[in-house]
Amino acid sequence: MTTPLRTAEIIAVGSELLTPDRTDTNSLWLTARLNDLGIDVRAKAVVRDDRGDLAALFTQALGRADLVVTTGGLGPTDDDVTREVVAGALGLALVEHADILASLRERFARRGWPMPGINRRQAQVPSGATVLPNPNGSAPGLWIDRGAKVVVLLPGPPRELQPMFDGEVGPRLDVRSDGRRVRRRVLKITGRSESQVDEIAQPIYGPLAGGDVPVATTILATPGQIELHLAASGSDVKQIDAVLAEAVQALRAALGSVVFSEDGRSLEAVVGDLLKERGWHVAAAESCTGGLLLGRLTDVPGSSDWVIGGIVAYANDVKVRDLGVPQALLTAHGAVSEPVARAMADGVRQKLGADVGVAITGIAGPSGGSDAKPVGTVVVALSGPSPSVKTFRFPGDRKTVRAHATAAALDLIRRALIS
Amino acid sequence: MTTPLRTAEIIAVGSELLTPDRTDTNSLWLTARLNDLGIDVRAKAVVRDDRGDLAALFTQALGRADLVVTTGGLGPTDDDVTREVVAGALGLALVEHADILASLRERFARRGWPMPGINRRQAQVPSGATVLPNPNGSAPGLWIDRGAKVVVLLPGPPRELQPMFDGEVGPRLDVRSDGRRVRRRVLKITGRSESQVDEIAQPIYGPLAGGDVPVATTILATPGQIELHLAASGSDVKQIDAVLAEAVQALRAALGSVVFSEDGRSLEAVVGDLLKERGWHVAAAESCTGGLLLGRLTDVPGSSDWVIGGIVAYANDVKVRDLGVPQALLTAHGAVSEPVARAMADGVRQKLGADVGVAITGIAGPSGGSDAKPVGTVVVALSGPSPSVKTFRFPGDRKTVRAHATAAALDLIRRALIS
Repeated sequence: MTTPLRTAEIIAVGSELLTPDRTDTNSLWLTARLNDLGIDVRAKAVVRDDRGDLAALFTQALGRADLVVTTGGLGPTDDDVTREVVAGALGLALVEHADILASLRERFARRGWPMPGINRRQAQVPSGATVLPNPNGSAPGLWIDRGAKVVVLLPGPPRELQPMFDGEVGPRLDVRSDGRRVRRRVLKITGRSESQVDEIAQPIYGPLAGGDVPVATTILATPGQIELHLAASGSDVKQIDAVLAEAVQALRAALGSVVFSEDGRSLEAVVGDLLKERGWHVAAAESCTGGLLLGRLTDVPGSSDWVIGGIVAYANDVKVRDLGVPQALLTAHGAVSEPVARAMADGVRQKLGADVGVAITGIAGPSGGSDAKPVGTVVVALSGPSPSVKTFRFPGDRKTVRAHATAAALDLIRRALIS
Repeated sequence: MTTPLRTAEIIAVGSELLTPDRTDTNSLWLTARLNDLGIDVRAKAVVRDDRGDLAALFTQALGRADLVVTTGGLGPTDDDVTREVVAGALGLALVEHADILASLRERFARRGWPMPGINRRQAQVPSGATVLPNPNGSAPGLWIDRGAKVVVLLPGPPRELQPMFDGEVGPRLDVRSDGRRVRRRVLKITGRSESQVDEIAQPIYGPLAGGDVPVATTILATPGQIELHLAASGSDVKQIDAVLAEAVQALRAALGSVVFSEDGRSLEAVVGDLLKERGWHVAAAESCTGGLLLGRLTDVPGSSDWVIGGIVAYANDVKVRDLGVPQALLTAHGAVSEPVARAMADGVRQKLGADVGVAITGIAGPSGGSDAKPVGTVVVALSGPSPSVKTFRFPGDRKTVRAHATAAALDLIRRALIS
């Protein structure tokens, strides 16, 4: 039996990945796949198309990790240095591979082009390497056994890399694994801040990190949503899953109904499923969020089963004329007030013939705030069988306030449906 | 005069950055700032909180680059290894810094807490290092001169790192620069695919890469938008800016009116400015995009000056009752058709009293497609002084089709306003 592969390093090759606008997303995708196979990623790097830099990083990575995966730099041009550098670092000769050359020629012939001379470089293979076919591009991948270690060279474009990993690399790594697996669970929460969640959750996940099957917990926060990511590894998948299920249950019990999803579903999908279950239809009236709530509600495939539509009443005229908000309410309380939010929700429900009407009115900023109603003040209201209204002061800039507000409105619908 | 700093490497320290869910965004922000100062980033890495791994990577990076910037690992816990590892790798002793200790104690005292013993570690400074104060956190940064080279240690949280860089690091690097600067320009394009843009643009930007002042070009594509990023560097800022301005002009001339922005503005901001200029107000009727177009229109601060609102007519009933689309049109042509799109645009313009009405109807998928109208079929229409209608077949999944459709509708408004 060969030694199992436990640790990996990922090296992304490409000068374009070192600009302020580009990020290496392949390594995130690969990390998830490697973790699933029980392999931890211990470091990752991005290097420019430079022989010396890549050789140094590659050699160091192979010294540390059981598996080194490179992405990119397998194209036909002089800038594509990965094949050559890895072969050199491993002391392997590059030999022309007749099958690759034939399939490259065929690939070009199918389009009625002769193969450019430079593409011949893509048929160069380090002596002894296994060629990984690439149905979606001209650059084949490579698998190189190196004693107990493994080196894998993958093309950069995700649509070439991902099927190649799943078809060729994953199964080969699976054979080399010792059955160790990383399993994950995610709890999604809304209506609480990151520190509020952590205060409740830490006493539970803290001790879990030191258990017989250690559970690692990460908190991810976005406006209106907190996620708790739990991960545990081992060779007994049933045991790990049981430990994770227990952890999820304990966290859910402590956090209560602010947890809206344990199965990966988004808040809008959870709300959609609840509406569909009851056979209810929703309509929305939006002011400061200007359509974003409706955009989220209709983001779910099949949402025409539960979304009728809505009215974006950005101007006060529209609130009065098209939503039937009494002018007197606007004058007495202002557009951002609980009476107006309630009237908007009632109006859109009646107007569009929905079972549930939901409304958002607020001050997203940067201007429009006052001492009494500063930027971030948002009122959400629900009309229908369980009417309700809530006023919030959200932190952050325009984008953040709008994201918080849509989450709060979705949560208002959710709470009415689960109560 | 000291040797100018030309190249940098960035090392992000933290095991949590090696999970599938987290990405190192600090390096993108830092790359933009370093480029502005004429410093190229030649490699970047993410390492776990491990003394050996960090020491090896740091030593190698300092061998290659003039400047090494680390982010993270400056906290008070045993997992925070950056200070100690960097000092060790440079052969510097760690000494307790009285001022830091005093300010840490004061920081805790302000909140009425005694300073936990472990925070004392944050007062440890490599001998000879310059302390960079951190007004937003407990971890001070460090600047270490190393002959002609420089090492900078920054805290991980962006709200601590960014002000520290701008306040303490940037000015010090500026002194060490030779006046070389990287300048950038961005052209934003809509209504063309990446390959269409490249076919027209490559003959122009290709030769520019080999000019006296080489201009590097990157293409970034998102659904409905292509960006051309141009960058050039040198010490004569006026000359570089002139070369870039010439390049922008040549590309704009070749690409024509599909270029909507040269100054960083988003498509919705450009449309907003054009509407505001004319004093016109817009209203939108959306079907398959379900509010996303209105969401984008109202994303621009001050948009209440040109957006009245709109109607999301997800159900056909709403199209008839609230937008006044004749049932006969729906029956004869179907909801996704040019006559219905036109009627929706007319309806929302009249109903909400707008100068311009815009409408989107289409099939975002995954279901609902047919042979005649497959998923991705989208019709956008404009009502008002320059009415128009256009049918598209967008590629991709639900999210992609919806993004393409909102961009197409915004572009229809833009074209009516610039014609």
